[in-house]
Amino acid sequence: MSTLDPQVAADLAPRSTDPLGVAIPSTVPTHWYNLNADFPEPLPPHLHPGTHEPLTPPDLAPLFPMALIMQEVTTERYVEIPQTVREIYAMWRPSPLVRAHRLERVLGTKAHLYYKYEGVSPAGSHKPNTAVAQAYYNAIEGTTKLTTETGAGQWGASLAMACALLGLTCEVWQVRASYDSKPYRRYQMETYGSICHPSPSDLTDAGRAILAEMPDTTGSLGMAISEAVEAAAKDPDAHYALGSVLNHVMLHQTVIGQEVLVQLAEAGEKQADVVFGCAGGGSNLGGLSFPLIGQNLREGTTTRAVACEPTACPSLTKGEYRYDFGDVAGLTPLLKMYTLGKDFVPAPIHAGGLRYHGMSPMISHAVNLGLMDAVAIEQDTAFAAGVVFARAEAIIPAPESTHAVAAALDYARTAADGEVIVIGLSGNGVLDLPSYAAYV
Amino acid sequence: MSTLDPQVAADLAPRSTDPLGVAIPSTVPTHWYNLNADFPEPLPPHLHPGTHEPLTPPDLAPLFPMALIMQEVTTERYVEIPQTVREIYAMWRPSPLVRAHRLERVLGTKAHLYYKYEGVSPAGSHKPNTAVAQAYYNAIEGTTKLTTETGAGQWGASLAMACALLGLTCEVWQVRASYDSKPYRRYQMETYGSICHPSPSDLTDAGRAILAEMPDTTGSLGMAISEAVEAAAKDPDAHYALGSVLNHVMLHQTVIGQEVLVQLAEAGEKQADVVFGCAGGGSNLGGLSFPLIGQNLREGTTTRAVACEPTACPSLTKGEYRYDFGDVAGLTPLLKMYTLGKDFVPAPIHAGGLRYHGMSPMISHAVNLGLMDAVAIEQDTAFAAGVVFARAEAIIPAPESTHAVAAALDYARTAADGEVIVIGLSGNGVLDLPSYAAYV
Repeated sequence: MSTLDPQVAADLAPRSTDPLGVAIPSTVPTHWYNLNADFPEPLPPHLHPGTHEPLTPPDLAPLFPMALIMQEVTTERYVEIPQTVREIYAMWRPSPLVRAHRLERVLGTKAHLYYKYEGVSPAGSHKPNTAVAQAYYNAIEGTTKLTTETGAGQWGASLAMACALLGLTCEVWQVRASYDSKPYRRYQMETYGSICHPSPSDLTDAGRAILAEMPDTTGSLGMAISEAVEAAAKDPDAHYALGSVLNHVMLHQTVIGQEVLVQLAEAGEKQADVVFGCAGGGSNLGGLSFPLIGQNLREGTTTRAVACEPTACPSLTKGEYRYDFGDVAGLTPLLKMYTLGKDFVPAPIHAGGLRYHGMSPMISHAVNLGLMDAVAIEQDTAFAAGVVFARAEAIIPAPESTHAVAAALDYARTAADGEVIVIGLSGNGVLDLPSYAAYV
Repeated sequence: MSTLDPQVAADLAPRSTDPLGVAIPSTVPTHWYNLNADFPEPLPPHLHPGTHEPLTPPDLAPLFPMALIMQEVTTERYVEIPQTVREIYAMWRPSPLVRAHRLERVLGTKAHLYYKYEGVSPAGSHKPNTAVAQAYYNAIEGTTKLTTETGAGQWGASLAMACALLGLTCEVWQVRASYDSKPYRRYQMETYGSICHPSPSDLTDAGRAILAEMPDTTGSLGMAISEAVEAAAKDPDAHYALGSVLNHVMLHQTVIGQEVLVQLAEAGEKQADVVFGCAGGGSNLGGLSFPLIGQNLREGTTTRAVACEPTACPSLTKGEYRYDFGDVAGLTPLLKMYTLGKDFVPAPIHAGGLRYHGMSPMISHAVNLGLMDAVAIEQDTAFAAGVVFARAEAIIPAPESTHAVAAALDYARTAADGEVIVIGLSGNGVLDLPSYAAYV
C-alpha cells in the first residue's frame, strides 16, 4: 500500500466549474422560485446607505458578482439553476420529507405531521443551498476568493464546503466567542481548506480599530461583517458572501419548498395546511414557505406559514417595520425590514443562528402583507420540544430548528384529523450537543 | 404559545414495540443475510471460557435475549426483519450508494467509484443497524434496560438512540479518557435519555477493584466491558449489548450489502469488482461485503472484498488465527479469530473504532478461507485520503472510514476503465473534527 503524500492530497481539490454531464434525478428542482414575481405589492427596494436612494446594481459590484446582483433585483418568477449547481445539489437533494409517524403516536395527534430535513447536507444544514450557488457565480465570473463572517459557524462551514468543491479559496471571520468556545465548526472549515480568523482580528482596519478600543472584546456578528466586507473590498480578486437576509439568498433556498410541493403530492396530500419554520435572518423559512405562498397567491391554496422566532430576539413579533442597517457599523445598504434596531444585542441563547436584529426584507414584506404569521418561542420550550422530537424521530434537531418543532407540537395537539403540518427542520444539532447537555 | 413543560417532554418517549403499520419502501430489505449458510466450511464455534467446550444457547441467556442467541448460531440463509425494526430502518434506509463523480475527476480515474454512505443515520454511523435490532428483541422479551460499553462513543450513542425509540433505559460505561476528552457523544446519549458513566467507575465490583489498584487510570474498552457485563448480569431486568464482533451483529449489518446489490443493478453495473471496508471489530465490513461474498459463492460473481485496518492495530495482517478472549479480563467466550492477543494495547490513533485486538470470527473465517483480502493503512495516509474525499465529495468521512477511502484511492489510480469500486463509508466525521484539525 503506497502512501498518499499529504501535500499531494491537499492540492487535489477539484478546480472546475464545468458540469460533469451526469444524469440528475428529475426530483432535483431545475429552477429557483422568486416570490417577488407574485407579491401583490412590490418589495420596497434596498437603499444606498449614503444617499438613501434605491440601490443600483453598480453599487453592489465591489462585493458581489453581477449574476447575484441581478438575482437580488429580478422579478422573474423562475431563475434557472446552473447544471453544475444542480449536480452538487444532487449529492444530497432532494432532501427528505419524512412523515413523523412515531412523533404522531407520542403526541396522540390525528394530524399528518411531516418534517423537511435539511440536516442531510454534508455541512448539516440548509446553508449549502445558497453557498454552492454563490460560490459558483463567483467562480465563473473570475473571483478566486470569497470572504465572509460567521457566528456559531454553520454558514462559514457551508461556504468553506462550497469553495472546496468549486476551487475557490475562502477566508472566514468568526466571532471570537464562538471561535474559542466552539472549535468544531472551525475544524470543519479548515478540513475543507478554508482559513478561519477570530474576529476582531488585527488583519483589517476595522478589526484593529475595535481592538484598540476594546482589547478584550469577544466580538460580534456586526464586527465580523465589517472585517469580511473590508477584506473583500480591498482585494480585487475577492468578493464577499452573505448567508441569509438578502433576496438572492432567499431565492436559492426555494429548492426546499419546491421539493415539499412535489413530495406532499407524492404522499397523497392535497396541500400543506400549515408550515412552521424557524426565523433568524429568514433564509430557511423563506426557502420552505415562499413556493407555498406563491401557490396560494396564484392557485388559491390556503397554506398558512408561521415564522418561529426566539423570545430573546423577537424581530417579527416585537420589532418595527422600517429601514435599518444590516450590520452594527452601518456599512450595509438600508433594508426595509422588521428590526429591533441595529444596536440590539440579544441574550446569548443557544440558537446562534436566530440572534439577528433584523429579518429578511422578503419575509418582512410577507408578514406585513398578512401572507405569513409569526410567533415567539421561549428557549426552554424549544429545547423541550427538541428532546421530544429526538426521542421519537431519532434526529436531534439544531437549536434553531427546535423553535419550529415547538410551535408545531403545540399546534398538533388541537389540529384536525388529517390536517397536514410541515416542520422545517433546518439542520441537525450534532455540533450543538453541549447546548442540549446544558438543557437536559 | 403555551409552554411545553420540560418534565412532560422528558416523559413523552414512545413506549411501544408495536408496528405502526405504515407502508415501507420496498427498497428497505425484508431479511438479513447470513453468510454462515454459504461458507464452504462451517464457522468454528465460540467456546465456553471455563470448559473450552462449544458454547450452548443457555450459556448466553444471562446476557442476551433468546432471539439474538439463536441468531448467533443459526445457519439459515435469511432471517426475517421484524416490521417494527424495518419501520425504524426506513427512517434513513436505504442509505445512499453514491457515484463519486467529482472524486473520479480529481483522481483522473476511468473506474466507476461509488461510496455506500452509512453516515445518514441519525447517530451518524452504521451502528444503529444492529442497535435497533438488539433493542427490539430485548424489548419484546421483557428486558427493560440495556447496558453496554463504548470507547469514543459511536456505539453508545447508537444504542441510546435505539433505546429511546423502543422505550428501554440504557446505561453506558464509557472509557474515562473519551468521557473526559470527547464529551459530545456523551451529550448525545444523554439527549436520548441514557445514563453514561466514566469507566472505571465505583458502581461495579470490577470498577472498584481496578480503581483500588490504579486510581489514576484513564480506562480501556476491556475494563468498560467488564463493568457493563457485570451490571447486566446482576440486574434481572437488564441485558447486555455488544456493537460488533459477534455473528448476530454481522447479520444485522447485512442490510448494507444487500442494498448495494440492488443499487448497483439499478445503476446498470453488472457487479462490484472490489469493495473496500474499514475493519475494527468487523461489523461495517461484514455488513457491506457478506451479501456480495455470498453471491460469489452461490452465483459465481467475482467481487473482491478488502478489509482495511490501521497499521497501529493490524489484527488481520499481523495477528494469529486462534482462539482468544474478546475482552482483557477473559470473561467473554473464546472466539476463533485473528488476534493480536487480548493484552495488546494499540497506539492511541484517532480511529477509535478500529482499536480492537481481535476481529469478528466471521470476518476472520472469510479471510482464512481466502474469501476476503486485508491491507493495513498508515494513519497519515488515511487522513490524507479523507481530506481529498471531503474536498471532492463534501462529506467528511469518519476517521475509521478513511482507511477504506485510502485503499480505494490507491486502487483507483491503476484500475481498468469501467471497473466498479465500492467504498464502505461507515460514518461521518463530524464529531471527529478535532482529529482532522490535528492532521490538517
